[in-house]
Amino acid sequence: MTSDWFEFLKKDFVQGFPAFCGFEAIHADYGIFETCLNVINEHRQQDGFIHAGVLATMADHTSGYASFTTVSEKFRILTVEFKINYFKPATGPLIICRSKVINNGKKIKVVEAEVFSVANGIEKLVSKGMFTQVAVASEDLLKG
Amino acid sequence: MTSDWFEFLKKDFVQGFPAFCGFEAIHADYGIFETCLNVINEHRQQDGFIHAGVLATMADHTSGYASFTTVSEKFRILTVEFKINYFKPATGPLIICRSKVINNGKKIKVVEAEVFSVANGIEKLVSKGMFTQVAVASEDLLKG
Amino acid sequence: MTSDWFEFLKKDFVQGFPAFCGFEAIHADYGIFETCLNVINEHRQQDGFIHAGVLATMADHTSGYASFTTVSEKFRILTVEFKINYFKPATGPLIICRSKVINNGKKIKVVEAEVFSVANGIEKLVSKGMFTQVAVASEDLLKG
Amino acid sequence: MTSDWFEFLKKDFVQGFPAFCGFEAIHADYGIFETCLNVINEHRQQDGFIHAGVLATMADHTSGYASFTTVSEKFRILTVEFKINYFKPATGPLIICRSKVINNGKKIKVVEAEVFSVANGIEKLVSKGMFTQVAVASEDLLKG
Repeated sequence: MTSDWFEFLKKDFVQGFPAFCGFEAIHADYGIFETCLNVINEHRQQDGFIHAGVLATMADHTSGYASFTTVSEKFRILTVEFKINYFKPATGPLIICRSKVINNGKKIKVVEAEVFSVANGIEKLVSKGMFTQVAVASEDLLKG
Repeated sequence: MTSDWFEFLKKDFVQGFPAFCGFEAIHADYGIFETCLNVINEHRQQDGFIHAGVLATMADHTSGYASFTTVSEKFRILTVEFKINYFKPATGPLIICRSKVINNGKKIKVVEAEVFSVANGIEKLVSKGMFTQVAVASEDLLKG
Repeated sequence: MTSDWFEFLKKDFVQGFPAFCGFEAIHADYGIFETCLNVINEHRQQDGFIHAGVLATMADHTSGYASFTTVSEKFRILTVEFKINYFKPATGPLIICRSKVINNGKKIKVVEAEVFSVANGIEKLVSKGMFTQVAVASEDLLKG
Repeated sequence: MTSDWFEFLKKDFVQGFPAFCGFEAIHADYGIFETCLNVINEHRQQDGFIHAGVLATMADHTSGYASFTTVSEKFRILTVEFKINYFKPATGPLIICRSKVINNGKKIKVVEAEVFSVANGIEKLVSKGMFTQVAVASEDLLKG
């Protein structure tokens, strides 16, 4: 991966809802993408844990960019479906997500993402998901 | 469902991340919960569609409260896992989510949620998910 | 649906592993397929319940044929992924599966299947799944 | 793991539907279970590939026994739900399944299973699934 392409992906990653949530890209390689989140109160649910939706969004978006590393900029990645399991409540204050493409089809990509809650430098695996995505030519996407 | 209990659920629904996202509760009955979202730019992803994470969060949180209608206030609902499919890009400007408990076990609840993108009064089914949750006694949750 | 097409699907449904398992087609319409199974001991697991794999296979195969009703005979249906929940142990002696296409994309189909355990004429919903499938032109399948 | 316990699991694994399908246990350790299948025509579907249901059953059953290695013989393992992705058509003639517990809760277990199609000594990853199971005390299971 050229550093230009990573710089592009890193910026492209942080737009709209992911920017609103505060996710940041920290590492990328072919088929791999890693991100982090500094937890604030707005990320929590009614019991004080980080909301399942924050973790699902982070895992989905990170996985989408893992797929994005495997195509050219003429393609866009759309999520067809995903499944995610929650192992233990996540409390932060730091969340890290690591994703990798496990089946790199030309059109259909399957990606895994692991989510870690980090406190005092200790990572705890709190969630894992599996994502099915399609690579769509940008021009087809615009046509609808 | 007493109107007091619905008033409690309606307020309880909007805290932390769901409040940050802008979800609102519009209807509830035993095993049923419905919510809405007025879309703003912060809900979108890089291609202008509503982010998969917004829809997943809305479906997860709405489903959690569908389960919450089936237990007393001595219990809390935690998501064990979910799976969600995306049918077509969601554009808004209004999103509605309707969830219902389809297997009401004492401890394990299975809930479905359908997500609709609404424009000019026309609803389009854009996403559907299936959620597995556990009802945990509040005192057990606090003990960890 | 012409009765010729249903007769073709009904026969086509019972081949290889589904024939080995004993599934039978009982009803079909556009986007809909229903099947049954008379339970024998070989369908059970170590605790005497019908094996989760029997129910998953039946739900997957029935869903595949629900999709098959929406395409011409020039296409084949392949399962991309599925998720299935088990609500209560299934004991039989009769199992019925009802599936329907809930998002009928030209290429990607999403199908739901409900599985019922039937005893003394009473149906009990024991399992429900969601299936993502692709319609592939037969000639592309043969090419690999 | 004592060799007695493995001998018990190995035999216990092959009953009812899994025996009917022809699965065999080849390796076990704490939280780990591996199995194989010699493919026959009855395992195939209408296009000659191994049926998705065979692979799902194998992955589910193998995962159940991975969980079984983590509890005493006073417990039984039941599948709550699973999700499985299919990467490429499986053709055999040998199928190997490797599963491992990735979240070993006292009551709720999450297990992954990878399925490989093997020909001429070369393994091809054809499918991967994630399984949520519960450990139930045998006496509770009998009570219903």
